[in-house]
Amino acid sequence: MQKNTNLKAYSLKEMEHYKIHGRTDASLYPLPLFFNGSAVEVNATGSELWIDVEAEFDVHEPWIWTTLNGSFISRQMLLPGSQSLCLFRGMSPDTAKNVKFIRETQPMPDNEACHILVKGFWSDGSFLPVPDKKLKLEFIGDSITSGEGTYGAREDTDWLPMYMGCSRNYAEMTCEALNAEYRLFSQGGWGVLCGWDNDPRHNIPSRYEKLCGLAGGEAGKRLGADRPYDFKGWQPDAVIVNLGTNDASAFNEPAWRDPESGEVFKQRRNPDGSFHPQDLMRFEKAASDFLAMLRKNNPASHIVWAYGMLGYDLTLAITDAVNSYRRNSGDSNVAFLQLPDTTQETLGSHAHPGIRSHRRSAAVLTEYLRKRLDL
Amino acid sequence: MQKNTNLKAYSLKEMEHYKIHGRTDASLYPLPLFFNGSAVEVNATGSELWIDVEAEFDVHEPWIWTTLNGSFISRQMLLPGSQSLCLFRGMSPDTAKNVKFIRETQPMPDNEACHILVKGFWSDGSFLPVPDKKLKLEFIGDSITSGEGTYGAREDTDWLPMYMGCSRNYAEMTCEALNAEYRLFSQGGWGVLCGWDNDPRHNIPSRYEKLCGLAGGEAGKRLGADRPYDFKGWQPDAVIVNLGTNDASAFNEPAWRDPESGEVFKQRRNPDGSFHPQDLMRFEKAASDFLAMLRKNNPASHIVWAYGMLGYDLTLAITDAVNSYRRNSGDSNVAFLQLPDTTQETLGSHAHPGIRSHRRSAAVLTEYLRKRLDL
Amino acid sequence: MQKNTNLKAYSLKEMEHYKIHGRTDASLYPLPLFFNGSAVEVNATGSELWIDVEAEFDVHEPWIWTTLNGSFISRQMLLPGSQSLCLFRGMSPDTAKNVKFIRETQPMPDNEACHILVKGFWSDGSFLPVPDKKLKLEFIGDSITSGEGTYGAREDTDWLPMYMGCSRNYAEMTCEALNAEYRLFSQGGWGVLCGWDNDPRHNIPSRYEKLCGLAGGEAGKRLGADRPYDFKGWQPDAVIVNLGTNDASAFNEPAWRDPESGEVFKQRRNPDGSFHPQDLMRFEKAASDFLAMLRKNNPASHIVWAYGMLGYDLTLAITDAVNSYRRNSGDSNVAFLQLPDTTQETLGSHAHPGIRSHRRSAAVLTEYLRKRLDL
Amino acid sequence: MQKNTNLKAYSLKEMEHYKIHGRTDASLYPLPLFFNGSAVEVNATGSELWIDVEAEFDVHEPWIWTTLNGSFISRQMLLPGSQSLCLFRGMSPDTAKNVKFIRETQPMPDNEACHILVKGFWSDGSFLPVPDKKLKLEFIGDSITSGEGTYGAREDTDWLPMYMGCSRNYAEMTCEALNAEYRLFSQGGWGVLCGWDNDPRHNIPSRYEKLCGLAGGEAGKRLGADRPYDFKGWQPDAVIVNLGTNDASAFNEPAWRDPESGEVFKQRRNPDGSFHPQDLMRFEKAASDFLAMLRKNNPASHIVWAYGMLGYDLTLAITDAVNSYRRNSGDSNVAFLQLPDTTQETLGSHAHPGIRSHRRSAAVLTEYLRKRLDL
Repeated sequence: MQKNTNLKAYSLKEMEHYKIHGRTDASLYPLPLFFNGSAVEVNATGSELWIDVEAEFDVHEPWIWTTLNGSFISRQMLLPGSQSLCLFRGMSPDTAKNVKFIRETQPMPDNEACHILVKGFWSDGSFLPVPDKKLKLEFIGDSITSGEGTYGAREDTDWLPMYMGCSRNYAEMTCEALNAEYRLFSQGGWGVLCGWDNDPRHNIPSRYEKLCGLAGGEAGKRLGADRPYDFKGWQPDAVIVNLGTNDASAFNEPAWRDPESGEVFKQRRNPDGSFHPQDLMRFEKAASDFLAMLRKNNPASHIVWAYGMLGYDLTLAITDAVNSYRRNSGDSNVAFLQLPDTTQETLGSHAHPGIRSHRRSAAVLTEYLRKRLDL
Repeated sequence: MQKNTNLKAYSLKEMEHYKIHGRTDASLYPLPLFFNGSAVEVNATGSELWIDVEAEFDVHEPWIWTTLNGSFISRQMLLPGSQSLCLFRGMSPDTAKNVKFIRETQPMPDNEACHILVKGFWSDGSFLPVPDKKLKLEFIGDSITSGEGTYGAREDTDWLPMYMGCSRNYAEMTCEALNAEYRLFSQGGWGVLCGWDNDPRHNIPSRYEKLCGLAGGEAGKRLGADRPYDFKGWQPDAVIVNLGTNDASAFNEPAWRDPESGEVFKQRRNPDGSFHPQDLMRFEKAASDFLAMLRKNNPASHIVWAYGMLGYDLTLAITDAVNSYRRNSGDSNVAFLQLPDTTQETLGSHAHPGIRSHRRSAAVLTEYLRKRLDL
Repeated sequence: MQKNTNLKAYSLKEMEHYKIHGRTDASLYPLPLFFNGSAVEVNATGSELWIDVEAEFDVHEPWIWTTLNGSFISRQMLLPGSQSLCLFRGMSPDTAKNVKFIRETQPMPDNEACHILVKGFWSDGSFLPVPDKKLKLEFIGDSITSGEGTYGAREDTDWLPMYMGCSRNYAEMTCEALNAEYRLFSQGGWGVLCGWDNDPRHNIPSRYEKLCGLAGGEAGKRLGADRPYDFKGWQPDAVIVNLGTNDASAFNEPAWRDPESGEVFKQRRNPDGSFHPQDLMRFEKAASDFLAMLRKNNPASHIVWAYGMLGYDLTLAITDAVNSYRRNSGDSNVAFLQLPDTTQETLGSHAHPGIRSHRRSAAVLTEYLRKRLDL
Repeated sequence: MQKNTNLKAYSLKEMEHYKIHGRTDASLYPLPLFFNGSAVEVNATGSELWIDVEAEFDVHEPWIWTTLNGSFISRQMLLPGSQSLCLFRGMSPDTAKNVKFIRETQPMPDNEACHILVKGFWSDGSFLPVPDKKLKLEFIGDSITSGEGTYGAREDTDWLPMYMGCSRNYAEMTCEALNAEYRLFSQGGWGVLCGWDNDPRHNIPSRYEKLCGLAGGEAGKRLGADRPYDFKGWQPDAVIVNLGTNDASAFNEPAWRDPESGEVFKQRRNPDGSFHPQDLMRFEKAASDFLAMLRKNNPASHIVWAYGMLGYDLTLAITDAVNSYRRNSGDSNVAFLQLPDTTQETLGSHAHPGIRSHRRSAAVLTEYLRKRLDL
């Protein structure tokens, strides 16, 4: 490789022009990318651009992808350690190139150090301002929003970071269609009330108000993942909640037993197969409570509960929760949207929605938001 | 035209093998086709087949369409009077041809004589048995289910029978995909509680239990349209209710004044634009009462309220009604399904869903029924 | 039917504003519609419009279809005799409605009287000028251009007018996409050199220069079908030749024997299955001669031979003919375009391209013409 | 990263079970991947798999992509030097995983060392046999077959390896649809007679018979790229030639002057814009000579010249060459297929066909081969 001797190092600490996507603490250096969809974006002139990052993990490796002028360029596993990755080479130096370096995979809340830290860039050009998008969307979800199944073959059934990603999920597609920027808050297997296996700790509301309540372990803490999230700094035009799939699974799975206290948690079905009313009720309460929490933190955002990509089991329970929240609060800026269920033809890997299913849901959601937000 | 001297007349009165589609009184002769989708179906050998029909109307003319071996062949306005229409000519005589003669347009409940009566056939072959389809679906709706807008150019804004039809609507498409037979009960402008213009007489539930509560006038009465409908004779596997669009419009339209009593009816909005809770409540009550009526008459059918092709305004009110009915009745075989809203690109004539919108909804409904009914 | 007492009769003889589509002799009264795609078009105000026509035939009945404001409304068999057909009723009287009454089926050259004659209209409004379209396209073809197979079920195998039509063929679709008016000159089973069955009389070039060389019998003659066609009166921007399919079939079919002279005609294959070079050569000569005839009559038109919807057997022979014509004439305004072959999925009735195949070819042709004619 | 202590090193030298895709010299170690689409494929059990590779280049960096069980997983630039890349981690150890490590970018014939060498793997499982596919296809082409424009935004106009690739090109798509293995021989800017800029050295036939006539420089020579290619070792069922686009450009570009001899080369147009007959003729001769060369080396393969993705300018010249070759050789196993031209909507980066254009062409080619090869 011919050495480009004009490259100069730029530390994030000193750079004026770059944009951070996703929840993080912008004052930290190096800058942690906690979430799927978390990214650093620059507008750079010059013929060549590199990024300096540091990665670490125990078990589940992080993946990243990059875009150039808004178009997908690369996707790769990050190996551990400090490293320089080339974002482009050999380009016409004078024009500004828009580049995003994006975390593909969700936070890994199991107790392990899985992080991506961004330190800075190497460039033979200069950095121009990166304007905000006019439209801001927040997506809250589970494995669907983590894009599980959007990579990998249909017969692949392992749970692997490799099969996940935001690069092909409905949130990314929706935002591309609407020219929006987004933040994701999602975790595979988690629900509103409990996880797919009845684990009541795996509920999204309990972590939503922390900076990155989904990052685990000491490393996460050290990076400040546990601190309160500053909602005021980034108010979305709409909050899309895509939860309920794992709450529905819990009704089919065995009880969960707390390894420490021995306590047991289980969403029950009646002998005739219908949901136990008490358990349905506590799911609905968790859902309407979560709407109240969302409203508290996002006073003016449109909130839409978008549900159905892996079955419609809780459609009526969720709408009941939405109705109940609306009645109690008088807040009518909350809606329900059904997303197309995944079929055999639109299935991806690991029994999750594939790219074609995400495309269908993105189309429905895009049309909905365009009309509702008058875009 | 070379005269086919082998044609023989067959009166419905004496024919053994033919199948009637749609609600009617099979003992009547000539046989009235009251509804859009009402049809006479035969399996006929021979080279040539004609049908003898009689049509009459004041203002809104009826349209018909025909299929041969399940494929669309013709669509035309019926002129008044007795007439013979050729269904096929010049075919290989030995094979059996499946032919349907189908009423395209909805009943016209305004006080006028609009009817199609079938008397019989002319054939140079013979008639074979017409088997029932395994799957039976009933669709209840408004102008969407009457297929308004599925014909005509986007800029056409007249209210005309010509623009309506079942030949291109989502019910026909769904049944073709699922190989189902169907009955339609739909009326443009009508709702669950009241019509689009707040006219409380224009509610579907008040007519649903009559043979053809939607046929109007003395002529309709004479044909028995007012008699109770025999639900037992044809129990659908699923009842699809596509109502609510006109109930939503009523909130935006001026009050309706009864021309006789002077009484006034109006679904109101609050000053902030939200629905008046009392009026919303009476809509919801009408909806859950209708579900009870549907269940009474269709004890084992899956009931799904499929809504959204002209906006999602009442999604939450309808799901509330469904939830309320389920709680009160303990009946869990009732569901809600959201159909894709019509966009500028999928619009048909008269500001109604066009064929592309119907196709999208048919796809969603087909997938839903296939999974739910385990087809 | 409520009688509209405001209807007035308008004879074509006296009408100022109407447009004729398709080759015909505009001086004839009543006006014959010889070809598929032949039509009378009006812009009419008023609430109601009827057309007076006369039909006659021996064996193969003619079909017609109508459009309102450019959108498909009806399709029906014409029964023999004089008759009035209603084109619209009950419309807002003040706006002008564009209406086309279109012959659906090809000329029937077997010796029989198959004609549609237009006499005039009944209207309670008035007739406005009908502007020409800027773009004019001529299509010359066989059963594909006659739309055989675009109606009917895939398992239907009779040769029937009912299964044919221009309402769903690639020519109509292309012209709708390009906003063009068109003339069709097509005949099922015919070729450039000979018919599918080696009948050398069934070659399109021998009839192309007559008004309607494809109309048969005494009746056709009486109507002037045999007279020379006035090419100057309507010069197309492009001539699309979709021929060769039947010439390819002839290589597979038994020899044809002239019933009168006893002479025999046969396009032969070599023992190894390849085309006999002599026979291929006479096909190519017929094709390049036809190009010369087309150029003579259409001096400035772009000519494109569009081939392939039922197999690519003669692709190289046709391009050879095109190359040969170009070399000999120095005319470089002649091109070759391959249309997508019909697959099992896109097949219609009678082993012919179905509507989906026509859609694919229309898309290719539309893109081609848009680029080539700089539209 | 938790260290997997069970990983064992496997050198290609000693491995029994792996499959090489693309032309190369299997006896070399480390194994060079010369071409876009060149790959090493294994079926590996175990939980983890790494590959050891070595990359080098001056200017244009090589890109690679990987698949797991036939599905796209990653795409990245290779940085220079020896390195280990992780192909999967954390999988269920017992099942066999099919993995391909694929060169994305074309050979770079400019005088520079641009190579990827494969040395071996690290695995905690074992390697199973990799069966050949039943169907083998060879694609010969230019920038289109090199996938230029399939990555990158529409407004990107630099010539960059980053925008190229076989992972999204029509060859890959066709082979996925037909379950075929393939070899690519393509070079951006090159033609049959000369390059886009009239450089007569940039003609594919002159290099086709060498192992990798497209690899440049001393490094290429050292790796044996200049040696004759062993055609017998891998006979394709079909050879797809997608050339002519650059030969067409040459007619529009200025003359090329040989920097050494000063000689000039130029494909000329006549004053009226048509191709100069002499120059057209030498193109046609080059094309028919190339067909003869293809036949010599691939005696039983179906050969199809598939052309049109960037315009139809040379359709008639190419068919003329095909016809001429067929006549002279008596070889009738050679055909012409037109691929859909790229439109504004299907354009990719650098004014080349985008992924949607490649999808359309792959569909046409897939249908063609399925019918022609009776698959």
